[in-house]
Amino acid sequence: MYQEKTCRILSINRKRIEGALQELSQIGRNPGGGIDRPFGSAADRSARSWMIRYWKECLRLQARVDPAANIWVKKDGSEPLPPIYLGSHLDTVPNGGMYDGALGVLLATEVLVTIQEKNISMRHPVGVVSFTGEEPNPFRISTLGSKAVAGRLNEKCIRQTGNREALADALAKAGGDLGRLAEARIQPGRIAAFLECHIEQGRRLFDRKLSIATVSCITGIYREIVTVSGEANHAGTTMPRDRRDALLAASELDLALEAIIAEIGRDDVVATIGKIAAFPNAANIIPGTVAMTVDVRTCSERRKNEVVRRFHAAAQAIAEKRRVTVRHDVNLDQAACDMDADVMNALNRGARLRHEPATELVSMAGHDSANMSRVAKTGMLFVQSIDGKSHCPEEKTSPDAIAKAGGVLLKALMILDREMD
Amino acid sequence: MYQEKTCRILSINRKRIEGALQELSQIGRNPGGGIDRPFGSAADRSARSWMIRYWKECLRLQARVDPAANIWVKKDGSEPLPPIYLGSHLDTVPNGGMYDGALGVLLATEVLVTIQEKNISMRHPVGVVSFTGEEPNPFRISTLGSKAVAGRLNEKCIRQTGNREALADALAKAGGDLGRLAEARIQPGRIAAFLECHIEQGRRLFDRKLSIATVSCITGIYREIVTVSGEANHAGTTMPRDRRDALLAASELDLALEAIIAEIGRDDVVATIGKIAAFPNAANIIPGTVAMTVDVRTCSERRKNEVVRRFHAAAQAIAEKRRVTVRHDVNLDQAACDMDADVMNALNRGARLRHEPATELVSMAGHDSANMSRVAKTGMLFVQSIDGKSHCPEEKTSPDAIAKAGGVLLKALMILDREMD
Repeated sequence: MYQEKTCRILSINRKRIEGALQELSQIGRNPGGGIDRPFGSAADRSARSWMIRYWKECLRLQARVDPAANIWVKKDGSEPLPPIYLGSHLDTVPNGGMYDGALGVLLATEVLVTIQEKNISMRHPVGVVSFTGEEPNPFRISTLGSKAVAGRLNEKCIRQTGNREALADALAKAGGDLGRLAEARIQPGRIAAFLECHIEQGRRLFDRKLSIATVSCITGIYREIVTVSGEANHAGTTMPRDRRDALLAASELDLALEAIIAEIGRDDVVATIGKIAAFPNAANIIPGTVAMTVDVRTCSERRKNEVVRRFHAAAQAIAEKRRVTVRHDVNLDQAACDMDADVMNALNRGARLRHEPATELVSMAGHDSANMSRVAKTGMLFVQSIDGKSHCPEEKTSPDAIAKAGGVLLKALMILDREMD
Repeated sequence: MYQEKTCRILSINRKRIEGALQELSQIGRNPGGGIDRPFGSAADRSARSWMIRYWKECLRLQARVDPAANIWVKKDGSEPLPPIYLGSHLDTVPNGGMYDGALGVLLATEVLVTIQEKNISMRHPVGVVSFTGEEPNPFRISTLGSKAVAGRLNEKCIRQTGNREALADALAKAGGDLGRLAEARIQPGRIAAFLECHIEQGRRLFDRKLSIATVSCITGIYREIVTVSGEANHAGTTMPRDRRDALLAASELDLALEAIIAEIGRDDVVATIGKIAAFPNAANIIPGTVAMTVDVRTCSERRKNEVVRRFHAAAQAIAEKRRVTVRHDVNLDQAACDMDADVMNALNRGARLRHEPATELVSMAGHDSANMSRVAKTGMLFVQSIDGKSHCPEEKTSPDAIAKAGGVLLKALMILDREMD
């Protein structure tokens, strides 16, 4: 208990992390204040160079770039143990904010700098990683770098995107090598633990006036394409009773899905129809076909099945009533991913030592941590997004919350370093 | 009465009109059996040449092409009176059928051939016209040729389409001249009457087992763009209560419009949302904005106003409930167009003489006749579309109905010739 108490005085340097966040946020900044730094862009490459220089200056450590262009930096430990890594990503969505991903890499860096400054002895090697292309990117593979690390990116997936050459070029420019991608894979056990700090991107913490939370699970994502087929027809000469309007049926489907989620009434089950296309899509023609995406997210396989089952039943009823057909083509069914109990426990203990409530939340967005959990004990720390804003220039996290998160992360790292072998 | 009775034995030549329809339908025929003959296509030009040759062979008359590339043919009358024209158009929608427009031109031709064959003396010159680009076309001006005749196509409209050069080229290739378009205009009174036979394109006649009907009015068309603005947000991290989903609001709008039309419950008031676009339109983002077209058709200005008023009220309620905004931008408000009472009367009398019920219907589609009614006494005769099919390869009208329509058209023409000055 003595050690845990003394650690309370260990804090990160708020001014330094703020300075780093501001400096990095200039890279890819557009006139509207948003950040355009998708993987493959010149801004993404500048951010990588900036990071490597920063590590060199502040940590006196040389970065390593793997074939997936993930960038790694590591200080030695006192014992021959596998390393503990902290990190996230530097790329952004188009017109994104300055905290998503960047905070995770910079706070990990700040924790490492603090360890060096305070001469804290660590048994494990401790490092920082910045993963390639976490956000949607022109190569159509999100969490690209961590997928490669987890061995989830084979030649077939890459060929399916139809962007192999462009991807090879982007990786090469970032210091990677698509031909040697398999070498980026890390076998389970070769990394002791992975910790990712990330903004929540929602407003659960903001609404409850909490700064941080331990992530218990990363949501599963089920996605299907719904195709409604009715009959395209003349918008003037076709009487209402004779219409088989695919868009009207699609409208009912969207509202039915909303009602199903409302009936379940939980924060951890959401569903969205985000993408829609009507054919022939002309002002004077009744829509004959509508295609749209359904995205269902929950950490519970049972609830996912319930939503899908009820949605399909509603679709069947609507199809019969409106004399249309509805087809469902599943194109993603990614299982939820529980975070490691030991890492969660270390984060919760770290929070309590900082007098923060040890809140647990599920993550409703995907993260590199979902891939990393396949190769290492993995945990995530959420930091409050002010007003829940994310993926926009207004994305904001307070310096106070960042300082708290840094302290918790540092403490959790020290607990894991001491207790893990 | 004597004259009217003898006329009953006057029939068109069923075999000849069928042969002409079949021959013309080969032009622009695609492998799926549909016809691709939009204005500007090589097929459209072939159809024009074919028509001019056919007139030359069967009528021994030389066609005249006006600056709008409308093609006209006319036989002299016995008195110095303005001409009576019959006609329609030869162009088709993409993958269209063989009756829409073509029937009107060929049946007009057949009536003229019959008059010549039977040596029927006409007081008025009688002619056939085939209008340019009645259907939607790449130059974005429907009923292009008849608009020019009615003086409704000025330099400003043409420039607004952004296709002036392409249009000039297409007109020149078809024998027209965009620079001299104003010369295509015909002053009111210079044509005594215009009669157009057209397939119904709906199933009112089919459902009532009727072959033909006199058109009483061509529908008005009101069109607006509805823009729903909510908030684009993360499809995972945004809780249902925090969503301002523009697509869900748009779905309710579409269903509200359908309900308003159902409550009015008449065949002659229809409304359609045919075109929709969501932004940013991604599977993992809640739609922030949705734009869609609303098309309302009725012959009654009062009913149109009622539909629009109720729709806007429903939109306001939905907007408030869902915390979105709804904007309405009217981009077309074309008044309904009554057909001429004398021409309608002649068509009704012609129908009765053929022992056909003198049914009257409103046209829920736009036609060249709407433009022609500005310069001449204008009337339309609808012929049954089997199963209501239109704008598709399956479009079909029976030889029986065509023969009846030909007889009625011939009779109506003779009545007008006798009674009009």
